[in-house]
Amino acid sequence: MTTATVVTAAMLAIGDELLSGRTKDKNIGQLAEVLTLAGIDLKEVRIVADDEEAIVEALNALRARYTYVFTSGGIGPTHDDITADAISKAFGLPCVHDDKAMELLGAMYERRGLEFTDARKRMARMPEGAAHIPNPVSTAPGFIVGNVHVMAGVPSVFEAMLDAVVPTLATGSKMLSESVPCPHGEGDIGGPLGDIQKAHPDTSIGSYPRFSENRFSTEIVVRGRTTEAVAAAAADVRQMIAALDRKKAG
Amino acid sequence: MTTATVVTAAMLAIGDELLSGRTKDKNIGQLAEVLTLAGIDLKEVRIVADDEEAIVEALNALRARYTYVFTSGGIGPTHDDITADAISKAFGLPCVHDDKAMELLGAMYERRGLEFTDARKRMARMPEGAAHIPNPVSTAPGFIVGNVHVMAGVPSVFEAMLDAVVPTLATGSKMLSESVPCPHGEGDIGGPLGDIQKAHPDTSIGSYPRFSENRFSTEIVVRGRTTEAVAAAAADVRQMIAALDRKKAG
Repeated sequence: MTTATVVTAAMLAIGDELLSGRTKDKNIGQLAEVLTLAGIDLKEVRIVADDEEAIVEALNALRARYTYVFTSGGIGPTHDDITADAISKAFGLPCVHDDKAMELLGAMYERRGLEFTDARKRMARMPEGAAHIPNPVSTAPGFIVGNVHVMAGVPSVFEAMLDAVVPTLATGSKMLSESVPCPHGEGDIGGPLGDIQKAHPDTSIGSYPRFSENRFSTEIVVRGRTTEAVAAAAADVRQMIAALDRKKAG
Repeated sequence: MTTATVVTAAMLAIGDELLSGRTKDKNIGQLAEVLTLAGIDLKEVRIVADDEEAIVEALNALRARYTYVFTSGGIGPTHDDITADAISKAFGLPCVHDDKAMELLGAMYERRGLEFTDARKRMARMPEGAAHIPNPVSTAPGFIVGNVHVMAGVPSVFEAMLDAVVPTLATGSKMLSESVPCPHGEGDIGGPLGDIQKAHPDTSIGSYPRFSENRFSTEIVVRGRTTEAVAAAAADVRQMIAALDRKKAG
């Protein structure tokens, strides 16, 4: 058996609006899906307010612990967009108007016949030396500093930035999964499914209850890093379901 | 001016499926809305895997810092439902089959003609001495230990449990808000809006960009704990918009 490479990640979603319920986050689920497909394990997510101390503390905890950190939100032009300052502070770097970003933004506003206001110039600010993440939607770049990828909160922009970032990441062995629909409720499968998990320690077996038309059923998901491991555990799950079918019919 | 009472909260959403992208969380937004209406400030959210160490660490950090903690997920009958054990461990309490929960569940399964399996009995487990959170949807109770409210991950059950819990909470001065739609993009309003924020320190002014039909506009949200404070800041925001309208027209 080959050793699987594990690459881990965390997300830090930033914004008062996520915590007030005004905005329902869409980026966490998007990032989770994209990273899973890329073979990167999203291990933790935090949501914090537009509060410098909260951002710095969460970022420093996460960037020390995981291979990559992805942030969303707080990189627009208004006073409540403090992510660039907070990230700079967390890294102990000056937060500067990046030359290349000033050029990109200046040219874009000139094309559009709009004044390049001080507020708009805020969007060129990032920790000194940070690399850009291109923004094909609205120009203002995200940025990369250390293992931290700083991206926009607007879902269409977040998604576009993520698409640009993913090919640059070290990816791990892809986590494979197989779903087995199960007509029995969790209360019926809990015992035998726990035994199957114990017998297949190289997989992670999850069971997700469904409640519809007044009865419970389950979706069982077997995850693992090799086709063989997943197939072997999934076969045992199917045997378990067949045995429960017979028991109910008998 | 009366002093506002501030009551804070955090959420800990538990489950591998949230981090793999298989399930898109719906409970965070629901909790955020309900707490905001109740005058409780949701300050932080964390999402962690079904991993005892991760749950214990996050829970202990959050419960020490905020008035209330709300958890979702991991209280079902299968081997991957480890929330009751992890919460007990975080509090240094034994995790036991609660007598009252055993009665409730036993009676329910008897009515339904279903075997009260060991797996189903797992749903009666909670830290010794914990209080119940009633579950009108599927009987198995959530529980309260210290300032921590442990609830189900299935959104219909989470919501029902939350409805039962909210009337029992100490609530703070309700955060009031007023939304002002603004036809100007963030780049135009960023400067003057920052000045308005400075002039109204007892409010929190957020601006949220919208991008549709190829142009940017903004929704400006003024939040505060008194009607007067919110109205005064919102009036200044409207004046700012009128000034920008004149500038564009001129």
